[in-house]
Amino acid sequence: MTLILGVDIGGTDIKLGLVDGEGEIRGSGKISTRPAEGPEAAAARVRAWLAESAAGAGAIAAAGVDCAGLVDGERGFLHVSPNLVGWKNVPLRDVFERALGVPAIVENDANAAAYGEWARGAGRGMKNFVCLTLGTGVGGGVIVNGELYRGSSGFAGEIGHAVISADGPLCACGNRGCLEALIGARAIVERAIGMLRGAGGSGNAWGDSPTVEALSRAAASGDAVAAAAFRETGRWLGIALANVVHILAPEAIAIGGGVAGAGDLILEPARATVRDCVMDGAMASVRIVPAELGNRASFIGVSLLALGRLNERR
Amino acid sequence: MTLILGVDIGGTDIKLGLVDGEGEIRGSGKISTRPAEGPEAAAARVRAWLAESAAGAGAIAAAGVDCAGLVDGERGFLHVSPNLVGWKNVPLRDVFERALGVPAIVENDANAAAYGEWARGAGRGMKNFVCLTLGTGVGGGVIVNGELYRGSSGFAGEIGHAVISADGPLCACGNRGCLEALIGARAIVERAIGMLRGAGGSGNAWGDSPTVEALSRAAASGDAVAAAAFRETGRWLGIALANVVHILAPEAIAIGGGVAGAGDLILEPARATVRDCVMDGAMASVRIVPAELGNRASFIGVSLLALGRLNERR
Repeated sequence: MTLILGVDIGGTDIKLGLVDGEGEIRGSGKISTRPAEGPEAAAARVRAWLAESAAGAGAIAAAGVDCAGLVDGERGFLHVSPNLVGWKNVPLRDVFERALGVPAIVENDANAAAYGEWARGAGRGMKNFVCLTLGTGVGGGVIVNGELYRGSSGFAGEIGHAVISADGPLCACGNRGCLEALIGARAIVERAIGMLRGAGGSGNAWGDSPTVEALSRAAASGDAVAAAAFRETGRWLGIALANVVHILAPEAIAIGGGVAGAGDLILEPARATVRDCVMDGAMASVRIVPAELGNRASFIGVSLLALGRLNERR
Repeated sequence: MTLILGVDIGGTDIKLGLVDGEGEIRGSGKISTRPAEGPEAAAARVRAWLAESAAGAGAIAAAGVDCAGLVDGERGFLHVSPNLVGWKNVPLRDVFERALGVPAIVENDANAAAYGEWARGAGRGMKNFVCLTLGTGVGGGVIVNGELYRGSSGFAGEIGHAVISADGPLCACGNRGCLEALIGARAIVERAIGMLRGAGGSGNAWGDSPTVEALSRAAASGDAVAAAAFRETGRWLGIALANVVHILAPEAIAIGGGVAGAGDLILEPARATVRDCVMDGAMASVRIVPAELGNRASFIGVSLLALGRLNERR
């Protein structure tokens, strides 16, 4: 049985999955990233996990490695990542190939998630598919004609940094009114607190520093202000999704990531906005669906991408 | 020699081109559209032109027909066109196949122009390419992996109706802040007049109802207000182009259409905005270039699309 190791590097944890040729998970785990120790130390800890895991070292045929940020898959480089301070211009593919002794590929985490959802989740069997990952940041991945679309620079699919409100709030990327600046986790919390203050209330209803999860629970329990904050968030998401429909016209757009845990609180107003905004009924047939693979989407996707590369070489 | 007839149907004129297998123009002409007479009458006039033209009737192997609007190439239908009032749900392919007695295809005019520019103009040899056509409306066409990308609905590439300023001016499509509402010909003229009034001047400097061409000539002659209107237009274009780069990362984006006649008055501020807005130097390597085929782009492109379909059948 061919096993591929998927390594999904986040700012806090590295999620690990042993994935077979069918995309089935044969083992999984989680270790600390400790970005300050550098990529070689992280790769060594991944090797140690693999040695201790059921499969044992040497049992894998290849590895796929993903993280947030600008990843140049062709050259195997991580340019820069918002979560991994100091990991700049890292030859991430080489680092993991040396540590694990198998061929590796590197990919942006949202691209990996989109590929995973396309291959094994919400986008199965579709020709054209888009997946957005909502969290602190907003990532995107695009499948065209059944292949991950990277564009000529390798960095396509950055839907989170497409501007939908040119005079809107400042984004971490330096622009105003990117989707991420409007629906990233921080923007949602600030929106809710602003609405609460506008309604004469105080933030204490949701704790001193509320999270999207806390707001989501509050909204589900009938908190009108929290619900309104999600409705407004969903409206912004819908404007961005209508843009995706006008430009890419995919069969479906899947919404994943932690913030997507709010479910229909966000998705229903997003769907309504898409119906309002797209020019034609035929376009409105696009389905806006929840992602299906949760936080395993990226390591499944990047494993299958690594498997595909391995098969090309054989 | 295989000749294809390209039929580019505008609101006023139908541009006609006889194109050979290499994309070379072997004859061309222009007849009135007279949309009120209906599509069958227009097709009959195209047939009459062909009979009188040097090639003579019967000499063509296929026809490609394009117009603005929502064109369903697969089913051969025109859903609706902004320029052709009353041409709703027209089986345009059948109409032209009956009139001309050869296989026909139908396509959106901006898609046709993008394909023409990719095959024979500003996008030659590129893998991923985008072409925007600026005029009264703003059309877009997307080439992915060397093929015209239509998406799952058939209506992809509608970059003119992607929202970049959600609280912006109302668009003909019903949304606010679409690119078309910000840089369509009418928006440019209104911007210039508004700036002139703001500066205490009157519109008479450019005539009673100035055109983009008149403004362009004025700006080239040193008219500071007209130049400022184009700079602002170029900035909006640049925001939309940065979005295209973030989502599609093409090798180049070509800008055509009548409004593009303003050239660097618009393109230079657009390029500067793209450089400012895209997240990474590698993305900024995208080239923003003038389209090369002028108003022949669509009939060349749709002819070559028809030729491609013909070769598939053979």
